Amino acid sequence: MSNQKLITPRKLQGFWELMPKEQMLFSKLLNSIEEVFKNNCFLPLDTPVLEYSDALLAKSGGETDKQVFRFSKGDTDMCMRYDLTVPLARFVSMHQNELNFPFKRYQIGKVYRGERPQKGRFREFYHCDADIIGDGELPLVADAECVSLFAKCFKAVDVEVEIRLSNRKILSGFIQHINKEDKMVDILIVLDKLDKLPFETAAAELKALGLKENEIEKIVKLTKTSGKIEEVLQNLRGLCANQLFETGISELEETSKYLQSMGTKVVFDLSIIRGHNYYTGTVFEAFLSGSKLAVGGGGRFENLCSYFSDRKMPGVGMSVGITRLFDILLQDGKLDTSKTNEVELAILTFDETLTHGLDIMSKLRANNIKADCFYANKSFKSKLKEANRRQIKYVLIVGEDEVKSQKFALKDMESGNQFLLSVEEIVSKLKSDRM
Amino acid sequence: MSNQKLITPRKLQGFWELMPKEQMLFSKLLNSIEEVFKNNCFLPLDTPVLEYSDALLAKSGGETDKQVFRFSKGDTDMCMRYDLTVPLARFVSMHQNELNFPFKRYQIGKVYRGERPQKGRFREFYHCDADIIGDGELPLVADAECVSLFAKCFKAVDVEVEIRLSNRKILSGFIQHINKEDKMVDILIVLDKLDKLPFETAAAELKALGLKENEIEKIVKLTKTSGKIEEVLQNLRGLCANQLFETGISELEETSKYLQSMGTKVVFDLSIIRGHNYYTGTVFEAFLSGSKLAVGGGGRFENLCSYFSDRKMPGVGMSVGITRLFDILLQDGKLDTSKTNEVELAILTFDETLTHGLDIMSKLRANNIKADCFYANKSFKSKLKEANRRQIKYVLIVGEDEVKSQKFALKDMESGNQFLLSVEEIVSKLKSDRM
Repeated sequence: MSNQKLITPRKLQGFWELMPKEQMLFSKLLNSIEEVFKNNCFLPLDTPVLEYSDALLAKSGGETDKQVFRFSKGDTDMCMRYDLTVPLARFVSMHQNELNFPFKRYQIGKVYRGERPQKGRFREFYHCDADIIGDGELPLVADAECVSLFAKCFKAVDVEVEIRLSNRKILSGFIQHINKEDKMVDILIVLDKLDKLPFETAAAELKALGLKENEIEKIVKLTKTSGKIEEVLQNLRGLCANQLFETGISELEETSKYLQSMGTKVVFDLSIIRGHNYYTGTVFEAFLSGSKLAVGGGGRFENLCSYFSDRKMPGVGMSVGITRLFDILLQDGKLDTSKTNEVELAILTFDETLTHGLDIMSKLRANNIKADCFYANKSFKSKLKEANRRQIKYVLIVGEDEVKSQKFALKDMESGNQFLLSVEEIVSKLKSDRM
Repeated sequence: MSNQKLITPRKLQGFWELMPKEQMLFSKLLNSIEEVFKNNCFLPLDTPVLEYSDALLAKSGGETDKQVFRFSKGDTDMCMRYDLTVPLARFVSMHQNELNFPFKRYQIGKVYRGERPQKGRFREFYHCDADIIGDGELPLVADAECVSLFAKCFKAVDVEVEIRLSNRKILSGFIQHINKEDKMVDILIVLDKLDKLPFETAAAELKALGLKENEIEKIVKLTKTSGKIEEVLQNLRGLCANQLFETGISELEETSKYLQSMGTKVVFDLSIIRGHNYYTGTVFEAFLSGSKLAVGGGGRFENLCSYFSDRKMPGVGMSVGITRLFDILLQDGKLDTSKTNEVELAILTFDETLTHGLDIMSKLRANNIKADCFYANKSFKSKLKEANRRQIKYVLIVGEDEVKSQKFALKDMESGNQFLLSVEEIVSKLKSDRM
């Protein structure tokens, strides 16, 4: 074996992998969000990582096709999923006659994109999605429920965000009104990056798309409309004689009413557009309070399953930017690996008391105390040192005298206090400590 | 869009995908086992699904190489993981100077094998592993801890199993003793399938490997040794003058002592061999009580990282056969999708009371009650029918009179009882119901 050539152990670049204590925190974060999904009556899905290429790539094109991990085995042409939405569409189409609609599902899972690895861009990372799918139609109240769910996700993990919401029909209606419907997507793309571009550059781009100066002025002013619903409505009403525009306004008003009933606060902001083409009504995005950092978003789409089924299935979905959120929580010290410990109490024994230590460990674990017996072949002193270095809160010393008296020395490593307690007393003390 | 050719939605054959209610139960099963791992101070890992091919295939060969999903993107030759052990070896080797040893980690994740799909064989399925890795050495007490953890996993999900345990050094020592060390693996393979083969066939195979008749008789008798530790020891002592054999016996005795301290019951059984070549000492397997169905196992291995590192890292691991376990629980009715509901209480409103229904829904959810407002465009009657069909336990009727009086009609759909309650009273009632 030792003559064999060793392989340098290495991880693929751009693939998400955490150290165990970070992973403890990340799992906790995912669990908190999953609890919100469950509490809101969303059902879980866990679709395969691989899908048939024709199904997965049906709606994509361009960049996605190039980035996807695609390969064949035998006769089968397969891809690793690049999001959780196409697998949802595939699943809903397959099982449309078995599901209850509106179908509310969540999925937290890894997705794959063969992008060139760079800071903040991963080739394997988590998506954390919840969607509501209707059969034929889906009432607007679903949009509000989705936004409300989105808000609760951030609340559950103690991150303050401002949720900004719009309805794309308003801008689309205006673009229709000025007869530039054929340039709809391009115009929206320019408007979506208004905050990143100098005004002159944006204006030039809009001009190149055929907009007149007064139209540019009006549409840019329109995207700057934001605030409370009454203010926004006041600014919008009568601005443009177009049916789609009017529908957008009334949908915004209705959504606002439902959000109020659910106690969900949002800021209405027509600059929210969201890149994806497929959004057709409500769109929303969450920004860290006092920052421009987006940590997720979502919106309404016209038809989830158009590539698979003739049945129209409108939906509304949300996605939490879970990896970015995790980074932010780590940086803010709201998640702290040094305060995270898989061991609550270290049991230190001597050769002759090891089995007694194991017995105590079992009893403590049966009482939900994370007790660990340090059984490595090391001296008592170096075990104590290790417990200290690993910042384990309690150390329990199990020597021969302690075994005789059935009272064990429990040392609080933070305060330095020491107690002589029976196993039952240790359980009580640690449980009361947690409260 | 409607002129476009539709793609038939289909899932790749042999890939594990559950319906939402089954998924609820499966997640619960995984969570219960994960809680056991955490409670026993094991750390989580979540390694990437893809690895460099040279790293992943270093220790494999033959069948594994053929089955693995392997492909290239750009210059990178990658594979989807076929187990969670090689990724663990890669991780431990990379981070050997940052980890605390013994390093106790668990991982629950999907693995991929391009086998021909058939009943009970999946191409994507879950592994559920926990391992303890030592640095240089690993005391035998780790083997006992691993077996104890294994037993707790089944207890947590309320499945009765019998854990059968052996030490491969005993049989290996005997094979050494009869000078057939060069045929070690082949002999163990035959012995491993003794319960599946007619005795004559097995005997013929052993004869073909060069064993004399009295040796065959002795070794077969040896594998039939099972029972309590004292009985087993009595039958084994003095049977064979070989150092490895003796070591095996004393390890078995020592392991038994630790297991007793931890309150873990096992049956000692020398017929337990486990297919994998890499096990070198303790081996164990769990069987459903009163059946021959194995639902997991594990054992001690000499060196986890031999392909990556010169540092010797012995380990002991366990794996729960989670998909099989899930099937058994479903079949036994211990998990029942018809008794699983994502909705606890359905709120039925009328057009004019929808926002009141949403308000109540928010309040109930804030109190951890899975309340869902049926907002689809359907008549009251058909909503009531749906709640009934979906076996939702409670229905809450929010009409105009109820809104005025702030007392709402709560109907227990199982008993048919109806109550007129305030929102606070509903919360109290449902919470006390759960106790």
